[in-house]
Amino acid sequence: MIIVYDVEEKRVARVCKFLKGYLHWIQNSVFEGELTDGKFRELQVGLKKRIKADKDSILFFKMRAQYDIEKEVMGVEKSAPDAFL
Amino acid sequence: MIIVYDVEEKRVARVCKFLKGYLHWIQNSVFEGELTDGKFRELQVGLKKRIKADKDSILFFKMRAQYDIEKEVMGVEKSAPDAFL
Repeated sequence: MIIVYDVEEKRVARVCKFLKGYLHWIQNSVFEGELTDGKFRELQVGLKKRIKADKDSILFFKMRAQYDIEKEVMGVEKSAPDAFL
Repeated sequence: MIIVYDVEEKRVARVCKFLKGYLHWIQNSVFEGELTDGKFRELQVGLKKRIKADKDSILFFKMRAQYDIEKEVMGVEKSAPDAFL
């Protein structure tokens, strides 16, 4: 799955640190990785506590399988290629 | 497809405006939509002219089909739901 967050500056570090416990950081506000349903629910519960639902926004993109998606980078590659899924 | 950009502040407006001509803006630095192969190549050529490849980073996530991906939003929904694909 891919997660992109858009949260207010004061909550960025907290949200980013929390997500690092579950997924690979691949760009500025983008994380990617595989999660079981249980881990995903845990992550959502934790995120809800760390954001303000009326101000912040988190996007979750869920793919059924790794081969459903093809990733390409233009410019600077900010994470090691093997960090992908 | 989904495009997430991470470019230096001075180039954000230019990149954002350019992408709006091809895709739907769904969050801060995230765009989403369908593109033919031709339009995608055109978009890549245009983006290359507008970013600095040694400083900026653009991520492209390509799905073969719309049903390959499931989107979920937590918090503020920043674009109309019908703007999705």
